[in-house]
Amino acid sequence: MRMSDIIDKKKYDTELSFEEIQYVIHGYVNGTIPDYQVSAWLMTVYFNGMSEEEAFYLTKAMIESGDQLDLSAISKAKVDKHSTGGVGDKVSLIIAPIIACFDLAMAKMSGRGLGLTGGTIDKLESIPNINVEQPVDTFIDTVKSVGFALIGQTGNLVPADKKLYALRDVTGTVDSIPLIASSIVSKKIAAGNDIILLDVKFGQGAFMKDAESAKELAASMIGIGGRFNKKFAALITDMNQPLGSMVGNAFEVYESIEILKGRGDSHLRQICVDTVAYLLRLSEQFAELDEAIEQINKVIDDGSAYNKFAEYVQAFGGNLDVFEDENWVFSCTSKLEIKALCDGYIHQIDAETIGRAAMIAGAGREKKEDSIDHHAGIQFIKQYGDEVQEGDVVGYLYTNKSIASELIADLQQAVHIKPSAPADHKHIYSYME
Amino acid sequence: MRMSDIIDKKKYDTELSFEEIQYVIHGYVNGTIPDYQVSAWLMTVYFNGMSEEEAFYLTKAMIESGDQLDLSAISKAKVDKHSTGGVGDKVSLIIAPIIACFDLAMAKMSGRGLGLTGGTIDKLESIPNINVEQPVDTFIDTVKSVGFALIGQTGNLVPADKKLYALRDVTGTVDSIPLIASSIVSKKIAAGNDIILLDVKFGQGAFMKDAESAKELAASMIGIGGRFNKKFAALITDMNQPLGSMVGNAFEVYESIEILKGRGDSHLRQICVDTVAYLLRLSEQFAELDEAIEQINKVIDDGSAYNKFAEYVQAFGGNLDVFEDENWVFSCTSKLEIKALCDGYIHQIDAETIGRAAMIAGAGREKKEDSIDHHAGIQFIKQYGDEVQEGDVVGYLYTNKSIASELIADLQQAVHIKPSAPADHKHIYSYME
Repeated sequence: MRMSDIIDKKKYDTELSFEEIQYVIHGYVNGTIPDYQVSAWLMTVYFNGMSEEEAFYLTKAMIESGDQLDLSAISKAKVDKHSTGGVGDKVSLIIAPIIACFDLAMAKMSGRGLGLTGGTIDKLESIPNINVEQPVDTFIDTVKSVGFALIGQTGNLVPADKKLYALRDVTGTVDSIPLIASSIVSKKIAAGNDIILLDVKFGQGAFMKDAESAKELAASMIGIGGRFNKKFAALITDMNQPLGSMVGNAFEVYESIEILKGRGDSHLRQICVDTVAYLLRLSEQFAELDEAIEQINKVIDDGSAYNKFAEYVQAFGGNLDVFEDENWVFSCTSKLEIKALCDGYIHQIDAETIGRAAMIAGAGREKKEDSIDHHAGIQFIKQYGDEVQEGDVVGYLYTNKSIASELIADLQQAVHIKPSAPADHKHIYSYME
Repeated sequence: MRMSDIIDKKKYDTELSFEEIQYVIHGYVNGTIPDYQVSAWLMTVYFNGMSEEEAFYLTKAMIESGDQLDLSAISKAKVDKHSTGGVGDKVSLIIAPIIACFDLAMAKMSGRGLGLTGGTIDKLESIPNINVEQPVDTFIDTVKSVGFALIGQTGNLVPADKKLYALRDVTGTVDSIPLIASSIVSKKIAAGNDIILLDVKFGQGAFMKDAESAKELAASMIGIGGRFNKKFAALITDMNQPLGSMVGNAFEVYESIEILKGRGDSHLRQICVDTVAYLLRLSEQFAELDEAIEQINKVIDDGSAYNKFAEYVQAFGGNLDVFEDENWVFSCTSKLEIKALCDGYIHQIDAETIGRAAMIAGAGREKKEDSIDHHAGIQFIKQYGDEVQEGDVVGYLYTNKSIASELIADLQQAVHIKPSAPADHKHIYSYME
């Protein structure tokens, strides 16, 4: 087999066999096939796409490149939720302890953030003394005792994806549905869960710019997942607005605690409740969404979900008490006002601009080696649909850096205000399984 | 400017500016842009093509990567003929001395052969004692005194092409019209000639598999050439048959001498006469092809053309006398018969198979570092249209190697024989300017 023949084959839009795709992936990981041939091949995949069969082969070859996590010691059904990455997306932090209140386990590995979207692990590390880099056995024991655990990446899972993603990132081959799908599904399968709910976002700052391409990506992932005999389903969600009213690491943990304590942003609570409801129905805990929603509201309102969260944080050495003190949470040298530029109703808050501003303020990393300021970020006190007068404060940027005034101007322009009230905002656009 | 943005731009089929294309080519030559980004970009060009404007920019940027030959010391109009590479193609050897008999100069640099097609320089080097690696001033002086000169590549012309071609060769990006066109035209412009006749071949073993794509390539090169204020024209020719009856280095010099002496294959003579006639009309020496043909036949038949060839060989130290001795020309340890497999008429001789067999026999290089046997090759004694009986010898393979019998079997199968006589074979399919 020769790599140049495989490039030609895909270039002329002929389906590749498992052996051919395996040759590419294993050769790339082993270093026998050079970057320049792989990037040319990735571009043929961008242009000609892949059949579901080929995408499955690619996923399988990628999984084979590393280890697979064995979660068989956990007897309950193991569920996972995967988001394609959103600004202010703290949903995992909120739903994991809720799920743990039911007859399910959530053993979730998360990554660190890069670019506009934050990483769950970075957010958790804003909790003083917590250690989320745990060995596999502690991880499994915690899931068994608490019902869930969130940890950083462990083991050598799908090394092919790391190497391929780094190459795709600089060769214009990120936005290819089979490449995105195989990257996500390979990691989910290698992580050992049985039931996976995908949150496929569309809109500004998301991989997928519209609902149709988000659905196409979801269908591809559900198809590939099915070939591994795993239950995949997907929510198609709108990322044109940030999730909740806060963006930033400690801010998002604070906002998650508020939701788990039955307080905070009702819109965010609803998103989390709905997401868990779909998962509970998918894993056959409830036949109807309504039944599930009723029980979910119960475990939030009676404090069970918050207690699960506290148990988890304690298991990994963290101290949640400080989150009772708003002065600690919002402790930055600068608190800059974001004001309404005219009278009217808020119709949109550009997620992409908000994500970028939060990153610049210190909440995220532009480059892998950048460090993070857990207390930098953005808080909105006005939301989608709220009426405002010109000059009203709609939110604050918190930072320990000196920030160019253009950034505040950008943030103010990211808050779109129109004369009449907008229609109700629908976050979950559709559900597929 | 960022290379990943330029890849994306071409990927989304937006035209690139000169500055962007220049950035890619100069960055690649300087080593600031890595192979893996260039190969991905080349693949976007394969899929989305290039406008004539972009192909011109690419050609210009490639020329800028190195030196340009200054032929202004030669006062006559300087013509060149470029072939996209054919099996047994010794046309340059024959037409250069013919052209020198008119009020034109031919200052031609040629390459060495690789793969199926031989290089003019390799062929010339079968002449004992000749030195075709000459400094530029000797080259120009010879053109001025003899009227033509053929030499090996000199100077640092279009280094971008060497680097890009090596990458294209292993990344499935050879067969892209703008990439082929810019590669050829950049070298022709850098070599300093004014009037260039392209011989764009189609058929087996040629870059272009059919006449339509050959025409498309020709149109692209003529268009780019025009933007440099150079006169480009093209012959579209059929490479389904080898050119003439011999393939191999000394064999082809021998066959060229035969033509220049007014002997040898009449079909090959006609191709050469026609080619020169188009060049003479293009360079306004004659208004009509017929007039040109008459004068060309005259300079062959009166020995002027052969004398020009002999003058050139002498100028570079070569000894032509040995070519009078057929035993010297065809001096190999093995002379293997190629026989007709059935009764009938020869309809086709597969150029690709013939080229490959000659290469294996020692006449060509599979890899750059391979050495060449100047006396290995193939001679046909029967040609297109000839009637044969099963078992008749149609030609010979000469080699100093031990050759697998499968090779002779392949050669015999490459001679297609049918019961009835074929139509006249048309070598020049069309002319474009």
